[in-house]
Amino acid sequence: MATFSKSVSALRSSAIRDLMSLASRPDIISFAGGMPANDLFPVKEVEELFMQLDDKTKRAAFQYGPTEGLPMLQESLTGWLEEKGLPVKSNRLLITTGSQQALNLLAKAFIDPGDRVLTEYPCFIGAIAAFRAAGADVRSIPLDSEGIDIRTLREETQRTPAPKFLYATPYFHNPAGILYSEKRKLELIKLLQGTAIPLIEDDAYGDLWFHEEDRARLMPIKAINPDGVDVCYTGSFSKILGPGLRLGWLLAPEPIYEKCELLKQSADACSPSFTQVIADAAIRSGMMGGYVETVRKAYLERAALMTAALRQHLPDYVGWSEPRGGFYIWLTLPEEINAADVLKKAIEAGAVFVTGSTFDPEGTRMNAMRLSYCNNSPEEIERGIPLIAKAIRDCCR
Amino acid sequence: MATFSKSVSALRSSAIRDLMSLASRPDIISFAGGMPANDLFPVKEVEELFMQLDDKTKRAAFQYGPTEGLPMLQESLTGWLEEKGLPVKSNRLLITTGSQQALNLLAKAFIDPGDRVLTEYPCFIGAIAAFRAAGADVRSIPLDSEGIDIRTLREETQRTPAPKFLYATPYFHNPAGILYSEKRKLELIKLLQGTAIPLIEDDAYGDLWFHEEDRARLMPIKAINPDGVDVCYTGSFSKILGPGLRLGWLLAPEPIYEKCELLKQSADACSPSFTQVIADAAIRSGMMGGYVETVRKAYLERAALMTAALRQHLPDYVGWSEPRGGFYIWLTLPEEINAADVLKKAIEAGAVFVTGSTFDPEGTRMNAMRLSYCNNSPEEIERGIPLIAKAIRDCCR
Repeated sequence: MATFSKSVSALRSSAIRDLMSLASRPDIISFAGGMPANDLFPVKEVEELFMQLDDKTKRAAFQYGPTEGLPMLQESLTGWLEEKGLPVKSNRLLITTGSQQALNLLAKAFIDPGDRVLTEYPCFIGAIAAFRAAGADVRSIPLDSEGIDIRTLREETQRTPAPKFLYATPYFHNPAGILYSEKRKLELIKLLQGTAIPLIEDDAYGDLWFHEEDRARLMPIKAINPDGVDVCYTGSFSKILGPGLRLGWLLAPEPIYEKCELLKQSADACSPSFTQVIADAAIRSGMMGGYVETVRKAYLERAALMTAALRQHLPDYVGWSEPRGGFYIWLTLPEEINAADVLKKAIEAGAVFVTGSTFDPEGTRMNAMRLSYCNNSPEEIERGIPLIAKAIRDCCR
Repeated sequence: MATFSKSVSALRSSAIRDLMSLASRPDIISFAGGMPANDLFPVKEVEELFMQLDDKTKRAAFQYGPTEGLPMLQESLTGWLEEKGLPVKSNRLLITTGSQQALNLLAKAFIDPGDRVLTEYPCFIGAIAAFRAAGADVRSIPLDSEGIDIRTLREETQRTPAPKFLYATPYFHNPAGILYSEKRKLELIKLLQGTAIPLIEDDAYGDLWFHEEDRARLMPIKAINPDGVDVCYTGSFSKILGPGLRLGWLLAPEPIYEKCELLKQSADACSPSFTQVIADAAIRSGMMGGYVETVRKAYLERAALMTAALRQHLPDYVGWSEPRGGFYIWLTLPEEINAADVLKKAIEAGAVFVTGSTFDPEGTRMNAMRLSYCNNSPEEIERGIPLIAKAIRDCCR
């Protein structure tokens, strides 16, 4: 029988798969997914855009493209990113097969088995999986409501050998929901400037802000372009057009880009031309900008409904805060409560969520849970949240 | 500054990129690409199929799907593969982001840095890149007109430690163009049965046969299902629908599938739902079957034109054989001739191809070259081949 490589033997199939099959059952209300709202996808608009393309472009949709991405999308995406103040011209842009691929390529570019990397706790599960697949020793630093804990981060950066990078999601964090404060972002930059540790800045949710007043806080660190910090900025079309397109991007300094492009050649040759053509048309026509405004409003409404329901039904020993954008609300239970027990009771009652330990690289913190509000109808939110609240109460007796 | 991982430092940017940018120049006739014919893509047919989908399916095209692939495509592709006699039910099927991703996942599943793997010489460059990215020591075994050299293969399989797998492309080989003989296939199976070495059987071109009489020889080893050999069968929609969809597949025994699915989760979460929905409709409607018949005839015509031109213009010290399917003709020059010199002269004259050393894992064989006929008009073939022939003659003086 075949013998497998060491790094893959260390990967474990997560409970996420079982959860997702539960979540697709019609009799279960799911707050588990990280999926955009199914009912909001711009189906008609994309269909019309595709029809209007010229024959040459349609043929390009069927053909291989350059590993870095189709020139037309490189151009239009550059415009989209420059509007956020991102220094595209002094870096290199790689179109990736979802931003998950960008994280995977960066992991392979930087990590030799056993290397230490730093993340936040909680942390996006796809990032943990990508870093682990490269053999990393993943260490997490707690978040509070303003961002990463600077004191703990400083301690970790001072240990030798130095970590290969820090991975952070400062804007509407998955799963913590938070938006970094200006002050914390500046502290983070200052700390990194004193080290040679690159930053992977994941900005998959930044466009989904609810309040105009937050826009200054949403300025990416990559756009601030601080001296002496290699920032690898990743983003995605998944939340602003559709994850089924499998398109994301990496904006990085030339030497890092070069390694990632080489690795992408051997990973999947190029990202899907078919959906690149669509994404390009969606940017150029202004359709994508309009769609983002639509979902922003819809998600704000759903978030408001969920926070109202949580306020009404949750016991006051559960910690959480109102989302200012993105998809998620993070609940912190009393220390002695295991969210896995809550999940069990919730499933019996007909609702699911994801336990916090799923997002814990160390797998030791059991008393938190993630709720997603973006892919639920008002009726589901109003019916489902009391079930979750009851499951919590039942476990806290 | 950032420090990169060891395996990525060993990867070199290939000359292929420069060649491809040459190949896209309008004043250059390119026989270099591995691209399907641009003029034959079923643009109109796919557009109509997409229009006719119901709203639920269209929405699924925008959403995340399961890592293994959308259930509808799992089902229709199973039917397509079972018609080839493949044992889908007793294995597991993974939809991948092109078959390049299948090779990449298998490489990561099996290879620890320094592990030896066996391939053919010449060998598909994407496979070499994927195996190298995983840190493999890639050893190649020569092909003749009937398949892999069994004696050399036996010697290599007997060396310890055992190679992690053998990678082979028995059907219209890229770049060698050959189709394994029945006899050689059976010898290969017998040899592998005496070892524990898994076979990666790449069947990206098998549907593109020119002669009904060859169909028995096209029966995959995976379909023969020999006792005691773990066969990982890879295939692709790239040549039978369009590479821009970035869809391929892996059919493998459960334990191997499991590792690859885990790795895919961290690689790109899932393949593009958008193009999976299209591929599914293309299979179910019968459109894909009809398209394959169309391109089979068109490629046969182009191949016939190129072989006629080669017969007319090539000096008789150049070895080559008539293709029986697929995309490629492989030319063997006299030993002392370096195909890189021929390429230089050909580019000056206005035509490009890929040198054989590109497909040589050891990088030592310089006297071969690959011509592709599939993406050229008759006029380009008739104008371009004399330029190539003259470049060869000029180097052989």
